[in-house]
Amino acid sequence: MNKNSSNTMALAPNTSNKRETVCIFGTGDFGRALGHKMIQSGYPVVYGSRSTQISNLIPKDAEVLGHAEAAQKAAIIIIAIQRQHYNFLTPLAEVLRGKVLVDISNNLKLNQYPESNAEYLAQLLPGSKVVKAFNTVSAWALQSGTLDASRQVFVCGDDVEAKQMVMNIVRALGLTPLDKGSLLAAQEIENYPLQLFPMWRFPMFLSLGLTAFFFFYCVALDIIYTYIYENNDFSFFIAITIPNRVCPVMALILLALVYVPGIFAAIIQLYRGTKYRRFPDWLDKWMLCRKQLGLIALAFASLHVVFTLVTPLRAFASWRTGKGIISQALNNKTEPLDHTKAWLSDSYLALGILGFFLFVLLGITSLPSVSNNVNWREFRFVQSKLGYMALILCTAHTMVYGGKWFLSPSAYKWYLPNIYILSLIVPCAVLVVKFVLIFPCVDKPLTQIRQGWERNPKYSE
Amino acid sequence: MNKNSSNTMALAPNTSNKRETVCIFGTGDFGRALGHKMIQSGYPVVYGSRSTQISNLIPKDAEVLGHAEAAQKAAIIIIAIQRQHYNFLTPLAEVLRGKVLVDISNNLKLNQYPESNAEYLAQLLPGSKVVKAFNTVSAWALQSGTLDASRQVFVCGDDVEAKQMVMNIVRALGLTPLDKGSLLAAQEIENYPLQLFPMWRFPMFLSLGLTAFFFFYCVALDIIYTYIYENNDFSFFIAITIPNRVCPVMALILLALVYVPGIFAAIIQLYRGTKYRRFPDWLDKWMLCRKQLGLIALAFASLHVVFTLVTPLRAFASWRTGKGIISQALNNKTEPLDHTKAWLSDSYLALGILGFFLFVLLGITSLPSVSNNVNWREFRFVQSKLGYMALILCTAHTMVYGGKWFLSPSAYKWYLPNIYILSLIVPCAVLVVKFVLIFPCVDKPLTQIRQGWERNPKYSE
Amino acid sequence: MNKNSSNTMALAPNTSNKRETVCIFGTGDFGRALGHKMIQSGYPVVYGSRSTQISNLIPKDAEVLGHAEAAQKAAIIIIAIQRQHYNFLTPLAEVLRGKVLVDISNNLKLNQYPESNAEYLAQLLPGSKVVKAFNTVSAWALQSGTLDASRQVFVCGDDVEAKQMVMNIVRALGLTPLDKGSLLAAQEIENYPLQLFPMWRFPMFLSLGLTAFFFFYCVALDIIYTYIYENNDFSFFIAITIPNRVCPVMALILLALVYVPGIFAAIIQLYRGTKYRRFPDWLDKWMLCRKQLGLIALAFASLHVVFTLVTPLRAFASWRTGKGIISQALNNKTEPLDHTKAWLSDSYLALGILGFFLFVLLGITSLPSVSNNVNWREFRFVQSKLGYMALILCTAHTMVYGGKWFLSPSAYKWYLPNIYILSLIVPCAVLVVKFVLIFPCVDKPLTQIRQGWERNPKYSE
Repeated sequence: MNKNSSNTMALAPNTSNKRETVCIFGTGDFGRALGHKMIQSGYPVVYGSRSTQISNLIPKDAEVLGHAEAAQKAAIIIIAIQRQHYNFLTPLAEVLRGKVLVDISNNLKLNQYPESNAEYLAQLLPGSKVVKAFNTVSAWALQSGTLDASRQVFVCGDDVEAKQMVMNIVRALGLTPLDKGSLLAAQEIENYPLQLFPMWRFPMFLSLGLTAFFFFYCVALDIIYTYIYENNDFSFFIAITIPNRVCPVMALILLALVYVPGIFAAIIQLYRGTKYRRFPDWLDKWMLCRKQLGLIALAFASLHVVFTLVTPLRAFASWRTGKGIISQALNNKTEPLDHTKAWLSDSYLALGILGFFLFVLLGITSLPSVSNNVNWREFRFVQSKLGYMALILCTAHTMVYGGKWFLSPSAYKWYLPNIYILSLIVPCAVLVVKFVLIFPCVDKPLTQIRQGWERNPKYSE
Repeated sequence: MNKNSSNTMALAPNTSNKRETVCIFGTGDFGRALGHKMIQSGYPVVYGSRSTQISNLIPKDAEVLGHAEAAQKAAIIIIAIQRQHYNFLTPLAEVLRGKVLVDISNNLKLNQYPESNAEYLAQLLPGSKVVKAFNTVSAWALQSGTLDASRQVFVCGDDVEAKQMVMNIVRALGLTPLDKGSLLAAQEIENYPLQLFPMWRFPMFLSLGLTAFFFFYCVALDIIYTYIYENNDFSFFIAITIPNRVCPVMALILLALVYVPGIFAAIIQLYRGTKYRRFPDWLDKWMLCRKQLGLIALAFASLHVVFTLVTPLRAFASWRTGKGIISQALNNKTEPLDHTKAWLSDSYLALGILGFFLFVLLGITSLPSVSNNVNWREFRFVQSKLGYMALILCTAHTMVYGGKWFLSPSAYKWYLPNIYILSLIVPCAVLVVKFVLIFPCVDKPLTQIRQGWERNPKYSE
Repeated sequence: MNKNSSNTMALAPNTSNKRETVCIFGTGDFGRALGHKMIQSGYPVVYGSRSTQISNLIPKDAEVLGHAEAAQKAAIIIIAIQRQHYNFLTPLAEVLRGKVLVDISNNLKLNQYPESNAEYLAQLLPGSKVVKAFNTVSAWALQSGTLDASRQVFVCGDDVEAKQMVMNIVRALGLTPLDKGSLLAAQEIENYPLQLFPMWRFPMFLSLGLTAFFFFYCVALDIIYTYIYENNDFSFFIAITIPNRVCPVMALILLALVYVPGIFAAIIQLYRGTKYRRFPDWLDKWMLCRKQLGLIALAFASLHVVFTLVTPLRAFASWRTGKGIISQALNNKTEPLDHTKAWLSDSYLALGILGFFLFVLLGITSLPSVSNNVNWREFRFVQSKLGYMALILCTAHTMVYGGKWFLSPSAYKWYLPNIYILSLIVPCAVLVVKFVLIFPCVDKPLTQIRQGWERNPKYSE
């Protein structure tokens, strides 16, 4: 390393109190990227490799030695090799005794092996201190410096001191370490980069299922029924008209479903007279995916807004407008303004706009950087007060819009209700129960329970 | 704790260099949640409780002892009990001498007691080192792991070492400690979770007041006047037409108000010839709520955009369109395209769209995570250059829109100007003064003053 | 400091284990703001100044002494004076020996001096340990507490211990230190606050150039051609019609350009048979500005959406609608609904809406706080899968929209194609090549190469 010391100056400090040397086993992609980053942050780096011939891909301020020789130079050894080659480390057990081994490996599938890679490494080398880290960081991100996806580095390990040493390195590289406990957490950490939106799975499937149901319901009522009984071909409704019926219905139902678990929780707490018993599992899970449900509802609402706003641009809409005007013109008369109609149309539009506006506010507040900047009281105010206000406005929007058809028999094709009626069931139920829950005679005991009061204190022993 | 050591392994490290034991007084919600999280992060936890009978709610790897016994096992004791029960700690004063007591309590009202809870605790136990922390974190968030609202933990205390120990625990739990100074800051920290958007209060009240004023102004001119003098019932204008007049007016005025304090500051600095004197208080406060004013203005602008875009969907609009076309048809003639009208209508729409686009850009840049990723020069470029550009475009949009009515006497019902004229006063004043301020003969001395030059250096003694 | 100790209590700890004293040379804006913040965080602060007369602008809990005297009181000295006055420190060399000097200076221009200010300081005082820090923080932000722009403090220095001391102070002030290595990084750190969106420069110039080209292309074909050959004055098209032709074209081309470098990279890797050779420089740079290209494309797409949605509000549009309806009315007949037209119009609107929806999702995921919360697999899923889906939908939208004119000779004014045809070249090429690349016979070797396999392993020596 002293040979090209003039060059080293640019990266490594030139004073005596250097950072401790770090050893990296393996000169693959990630090993090289990590070494490069470490040299930038002032760590002397030595690579352990089968061939000590210096490749031009390895950072030029790093040394390359044999495995045993390299390991002796450092207290921390980063194992940048794949799990299937771990057993070649067994002969080195003596050299690695007492050293901190950092397992950075990932698997290709969830739970690929019975035990995590880090635990397997710890079993192979019981004399070393194994720490799991860096597996969620990508080589590309380290190299390019654009750490767009997650700066968080999950760290776990049984030896607190070893863990601390690794966390200090993580911090020095400009990343954020997050201590996940003992090495048993390694399985979870290794599964993490293989996950694909686990919190979104249930809300996604639920929405897809409901969307498919409502879509075919509408196709049946609006296209097939019309074709059979009125002999009109409205198959082009599939592109805009029907999506624009399904989207608002989905938005309203999903928004209401966000508030259902809170209501269940209140009822359960009131019934049990204590908050010190766990909710059933399904309720806990439902509560944890409320944010996702709400955001999917917001996506549907946004689509509904755009689908509605393009209406005047549709060939069908301009044809219908023209037809109406021409029939008036041919009858030589101008219809006067229908004030009820004007009131109704303006009201449901205004209600919808305000509801959507609050809904977007809710969405913005759920952005991580925004919600990090509010305190709990503010967060609850927005998510609960504004959320209920949005639900009330959107429900009213739907009711005013559909009011005129509610009692008209022509709206019940094949004796089935229009989907906007179906969409009102959940939100109306939520609002009615919530209205009951805010009555003082119900609200007061509930508040007491939530502050720790128990109707039957024996329960919690 | 040794009894179920097989189970403990999953959470606590099994090596000798354990983290220091933490004691928690109180087995309420927050005490349990915090204990659970600490065990996960490798801290041995011991609860101090009146009844040492183990509840199944307490994390199973924690010990439960009497208060005195538990306190002896740890250097740090978290006081998870309510302020009104603090006096039961007095008999324990000897055991707690020299220990770090972490006050995590909150009050129900702002400034509920003359002194903060943490200071009260410090007075009760003068031999202990009291640190305030964790009061802004919720038990629910700790338990569910979803720290959506704020990861920040405000810490304060008179003993720097004690504070450092607590901050290390905060970091180990994956939270971000923020040192707020000595224990006198505890009052502020205890008030923090009770605050409800304090920075938004003034901008909110201002907007509500102005909105109400302009709303009734419009109702008077557009509905009542028309009803009295023209006998037309346009009461349905309340839903969309009038909101869509008030929103753009509010957006323009509030956007201009964002730039007023900067202009005042420049004038004051020019007049005083120095930047080393404090601005008047009202100006300081105004400057600190510019972001909030701007975001409220953006909300009004967004509402204006949606209210405008739904116009063609309104029953009133289609009736009016139909009426115009039918009257042409009945007269058997087609009016040629009015080029001036086409130019005007397209210009004000284009100006409005571009202004709104810049406005949304400003809004996005003010998201915490985005503004954290730009440097000051970039931030100022966006907020000042792009902001003024947005103001110019929006003012021009309003002028082109209203130009044709400006001199028409019919626009002055009851001798009152149309509100779009009122809305132009502040923005035009801002733009004119700003235009003067960028003249070199004014800009040069101002820049010098801002770089530290003083016209009359004696002033700052 | 003891004089007004009753007041000091509020800010500084009153116990024996105080934080170490910090000395600040210079009582300018930034020196005062930093001192104030430090006192709040419990650091005793002493100012070194030419005049020891206490100004009322200096935080009142700070001492003011002569330079030498002040320097003796602290281990860390913050040099809050401008580079041109650094030489006055030379006589103090003996006093400053071994001390940590924090250089916080900035320049007015990029690379103003041959060496960075911090290196210059280190040359002047070789016995001191110079650390660069705090230069990206603004005095205004420190004072007002609103650290909207960047909490990050870049730190560099040759002495690791000194750097650590400074980083601890940074953390105590509630800011985030980021270690950038040895003092040679000072130049980069000093240039940082002078940069104006360096990553955006190339994408911006590219978009401006292309926009200008397409704008004049459209003006020529739609306004000048029409004026010359059809004698129609459509000059008002400049405001909305032409921008609304240029925006979608720009959005589509830029979105496609986001995916071009990935395709080039795949082809290069396939051709070379290894991933261990660097890409050409232009490709690396292109890859690093993909996010910016995508966001500019999203801006154009959003403008296109709004420009399209205001269509019905334009005087020209209502004139054209009226004309069509009147001509039907005067001919005494109503045209039946043209199903093909209805299908086409609804399809391209629906495709455009869905494409834009996915595009906005991509934009939201690229917000720093959102992308920090997803793992790499999720990030790639969104940016690659959803991105290609958006590209496919938008390309289909353009094709369905323009399909009817594709073969019509009237669309080729002056033998030039309509711009929507030009806009399809890049996206179609990208989609075709991508389609080839996902064939198993091509995808399999590519995947192997990306996992480290080399066709000709000798290459990487």
